[in-house]
Amino acid sequence: MRATYMFGAGDVRVVDAPDPTIEQPTDAVLRVAAACVCGSDLHPFHTMPVRERGSSMGHEMIGVVEEIGADVRTVKPRDVVIVPFVWSCGECDFCREGLQTSCRFGRQRTGGAQAQYRRAPLADGTLYRLDVDEDDERMPGLLTLSDVYGTGYHAALTGGAGPGKTVAVIGDGAVGLLAVLSARQLGAERIILMGRHDARTDLGRRYGATDVVAARGDEGIAAVRDLTGGDGAHVVVDAVGHLPAYEQALGIVRDGGAVSRVGVPQYTSGPIGRTQFDRNITITGGVAPVRAYIDRLLPGILDGTVDPGAVFDREVGLEEIPEAYRLMDAREALKVLVRP
Amino acid sequence: MRATYMFGAGDVRVVDAPDPTIEQPTDAVLRVAAACVCGSDLHPFHTMPVRERGSSMGHEMIGVVEEIGADVRTVKPRDVVIVPFVWSCGECDFCREGLQTSCRFGRQRTGGAQAQYRRAPLADGTLYRLDVDEDDERMPGLLTLSDVYGTGYHAALTGGAGPGKTVAVIGDGAVGLLAVLSARQLGAERIILMGRHDARTDLGRRYGATDVVAARGDEGIAAVRDLTGGDGAHVVVDAVGHLPAYEQALGIVRDGGAVSRVGVPQYTSGPIGRTQFDRNITITGGVAPVRAYIDRLLPGILDGTVDPGAVFDREVGLEEIPEAYRLMDAREALKVLVRP
Repeated sequence: MRATYMFGAGDVRVVDAPDPTIEQPTDAVLRVAAACVCGSDLHPFHTMPVRERGSSMGHEMIGVVEEIGADVRTVKPRDVVIVPFVWSCGECDFCREGLQTSCRFGRQRTGGAQAQYRRAPLADGTLYRLDVDEDDERMPGLLTLSDVYGTGYHAALTGGAGPGKTVAVIGDGAVGLLAVLSARQLGAERIILMGRHDARTDLGRRYGATDVVAARGDEGIAAVRDLTGGDGAHVVVDAVGHLPAYEQALGIVRDGGAVSRVGVPQYTSGPIGRTQFDRNITITGGVAPVRAYIDRLLPGILDGTVDPGAVFDREVGLEEIPEAYRLMDAREALKVLVRP
Repeated sequence: MRATYMFGAGDVRVVDAPDPTIEQPTDAVLRVAAACVCGSDLHPFHTMPVRERGSSMGHEMIGVVEEIGADVRTVKPRDVVIVPFVWSCGECDFCREGLQTSCRFGRQRTGGAQAQYRRAPLADGTLYRLDVDEDDERMPGLLTLSDVYGTGYHAALTGGAGPGKTVAVIGDGAVGLLAVLSARQLGAERIILMGRHDARTDLGRRYGATDVVAARGDEGIAAVRDLTGGDGAHVVVDAVGHLPAYEQALGIVRDGGAVSRVGVPQYTSGPIGRTQFDRNITITGGVAPVRAYIDRLLPGILDGTVDPGAVFDREVGLEEIPEAYRLMDAREALKVLVRP
């Protein structure tokens, strides 16, 4: 099959790779119906050391089941399934608690989703069967349930977004925009989106942002404080992952509030001392157990009340994936849908 | 009057100081009926630079109202009152939300509680009137409501202690022990106390600790993981404040759990990166709004079902306060009650 590998910073290629096969009785092999490039794929795109064998890329997808292992019960060939970006058994204590990202059996290596086919371990616990055709027009929205919508929702939920609350979202990528949508769904009163790309912040307004702040750093902090009577926001979502975004979040969070991080941190240590302590600031969020959120987020997509698929502003075939990385890195595309 | 000042690390003296007076119509002047030395007083006791004029010490006390300003309505002379360690108006949004530590009017300088008399600003919002005599035998327990019991409760509550949860408490000082008591009151199933002083950990067991771990650092982390099937604790209370305690907390917290800090951080930055993110660890807690917790913690003290006053194992007069610091610093006393 054809599959996407990264061989170092800036070096993404589509190459020939072995077809995946059933390795465990709990596996399924999927044909990739839709995949995409994630903002988090851009982190290694900037920093990855040269690696001759490359890294298989992609973790978001909708699949069509091709083949199942002997123990798989909940999906069968030709089923259309959402593939959350973490494998999970569905039965251990962490899975039952809704923290599938810490599943006791989930750490399994597979090829990536930016490919023609993919092996899915723990098929029963991970895959979410859909009653739609693979050419359904809602496919872009459904695809966001494999990562970015659930991740935005995780940010808003763990941060405590709700009625009467002001939520500030740092980052106007797909996760930031879907954190806006999620905060709105959770009933937040005011939603401040921090971003500097008009096309994106316009979509953010459509999703429910009441204010947009283009400034960042100290100037951005001052702007958000101005908008909130000097107090800052109850909930600040960091949908970026770089240290300055975390520092900015600390600057705009209200006393007693929460900074919810869903951008993968590109740092190991940072401010966590007396300043945060004296103000009772909570640091929360983390890698999102998106499998836990599909049940509650799916109905709105199916009935058309929300349109998370609008984050996709380009569509390419598999061989054009290197161009998709370039477009997203250059901010020429917000998020690129891939139809292999 | 006589009052306690610190003039530098290790240098605590009781000296003559001006009697406090009503400065604002919302003030009360209190006679100090009972005060104490706090674990957090030991931080400057170790590190304070020499300062000729000294710092007035003490922030925990029960007082008897001597005089009130013209606008004070809720207390009158001879009332016995709990004096939470932060001034709060009781009417601003933060106070109404139960975050009196961020009161919009609370930052007012006064003398300390390790003295004969003290001015209390914002008397109506801050002071909590008791229906007991100042020589009531429950006075030690009532005194803990001005800081250490409410602080322990804040740790357990914000960390999410509750039924089915395992809570680990780092630190066997008064706050750590009262975090154990609070976790038990909140219904925690298992409570692991990390401390190495038998007299203290014995009291911790009386308060509800199911396990005691004397080891610390990597060895302590391994011990708590052993006790929890390798997983760690849902809630970890850091009742110390030094960086190694925070690092230890990160080592023993379960995926999806919370580290709740109530020891005043003696560091400005620390681990807050990918490791915590991938495990969905929340960092919470902070300086405790103890005024918010008096209503719910007072009944148990009055009816004798809990005995937080047992953290006091020594009692001294005002002139002996320097010795009280020495005893606590040398771990010869857990917590020293002062009757001026």
